[in-house]
Amino acid sequence: MLKYQKIANEIEHYIYHNNLSQGTKLPTVENFASKYGVSKSTIVKALDLLVLKGIVYQLQGSGIFVRRRNRSGYIDLNTTAGFTSTLKDFNISSKVLDFKLINPDSEIATFLECDISDEVYMVKRIRYINNEIMCYEESYYKKSVVPYLNKEIVQGSIFEYLKTALNLNLGFSDRYFHIEKLDETLAKLLELNVGDPTLNISEQVYLSSGLLFNFSKISYHYKHTQFYSQSSAIR
Amino acid sequence: MLKYQKIANEIEHYIYHNNLSQGTKLPTVENFASKYGVSKSTIVKALDLLVLKGIVYQLQGSGIFVRRRNRSGYIDLNTTAGFTSTLKDFNISSKVLDFKLINPDSEIATFLECDISDEVYMVKRIRYINNEIMCYEESYYKKSVVPYLNKEIVQGSIFEYLKTALNLNLGFSDRYFHIEKLDETLAKLLELNVGDPTLNISEQVYLSSGLLFNFSKISYHYKHTQFYSQSSAIR
Repeated sequence: MLKYQKIANEIEHYIYHNNLSQGTKLPTVENFASKYGVSKSTIVKALDLLVLKGIVYQLQGSGIFVRRRNRSGYIDLNTTAGFTSTLKDFNISSKVLDFKLINPDSEIATFLECDISDEVYMVKRIRYINNEIMCYEESYYKKSVVPYLNKEIVQGSIFEYLKTALNLNLGFSDRYFHIEKLDETLAKLLELNVGDPTLNISEQVYLSSGLLFNFSKISYHYKHTQFYSQSSAIR
Repeated sequence: MLKYQKIANEIEHYIYHNNLSQGTKLPTVENFASKYGVSKSTIVKALDLLVLKGIVYQLQGSGIFVRRRNRSGYIDLNTTAGFTSTLKDFNISSKVLDFKLINPDSEIATFLECDISDEVYMVKRIRYINNEIMCYEESYYKKSVVPYLNKEIVQGSIFEYLKTALNLNLGFSDRYFHIEKLDETLAKLLELNVGDPTLNISEQVYLSSGLLFNFSKISYHYKHTQFYSQSSAIR
């Protein structure tokens, strides 16, 4: 992590730690620079990053202000790498339905951009939020990138394991959303009725090196999930 | 727009104009600096912005590489300010069902953070994608920020008008997503059946000054819409 990224994290913690509300004016660049003992240009870069992350907004000539979302309990669509970290206030758990090392079929191989002779970890889980069904998830990990997984690990946060135990640098992800009616298989898994609505997300996750290593299909329980996304006009 | 933002846009255009594919290595920082006649630090800042926008990724020591999504025809959830600009390849049109200046009810006043005695433009539209129903949209604009709208304007892209005619600086937005079953009113508007799935999005849009000026409720047609979102691990 670069210095300005580290400072950005510290300023973000400062905002949450002090529970600053929407529109609160932050200290000046000069104040932050002396507080953290870094140059003004590092603070400017850190604040630019926080603008892009939607944590603050800058009003030229007036200062820097806090941006806070109004509602809690929403799954953040802006964050890569699972939602365990974005739902800290909730009890997230998993039931593993299937876990094994397989050769992917041609559909999975296409989405994982690998060969059908490659080895791939397959994980099928029901995920729970506060003991209610949140989603059904089928996830595939290239063994060439994720050399080891076991049933105990996949019961928890797989991405946490990838980051901390395997020391992988997660990069970015592409997510594709479709609103659909549940078929019989999914309805049974989510304990809903055939034809009930669901949000299906296909996700491809890349290392920071640009290497695609994970493909997942997730079907969300429409009564137990809600989502949040923020954007900035700069995008 | 700051210089590095302008350069970031030019590099983004360069990628699309040359139709560079995923993983293509870009010129070096030095090359870009001399090409655009700016300092290396401006290029570095522009590239940082493009990393955050998901346009490129950087591999320390190896260079900068193009990131391209794999599928087209998806509505981009990362962009503020309507989808007309994110669906350039499609024919987007609107049928205005209702347009008037009103005093908001207490629900709308709450979401717009205004008083029920304030004046607010209300726009109800069906939006079409390639002549198929894309969504039903109810949108509310504070008259104190958007002093003039008419039926002709709201038939097109309202955000384009706000930016170009009213010269407003759009800032950022908060979006809340719920998967729901269509009730009778919405089913009729979308020409679907009661109980069919829909994605409901509530959106609050802010000026870059942090002033909330627009609240919308949008219900998407599940057969004619699909969505895309990308994230970077830095977030």
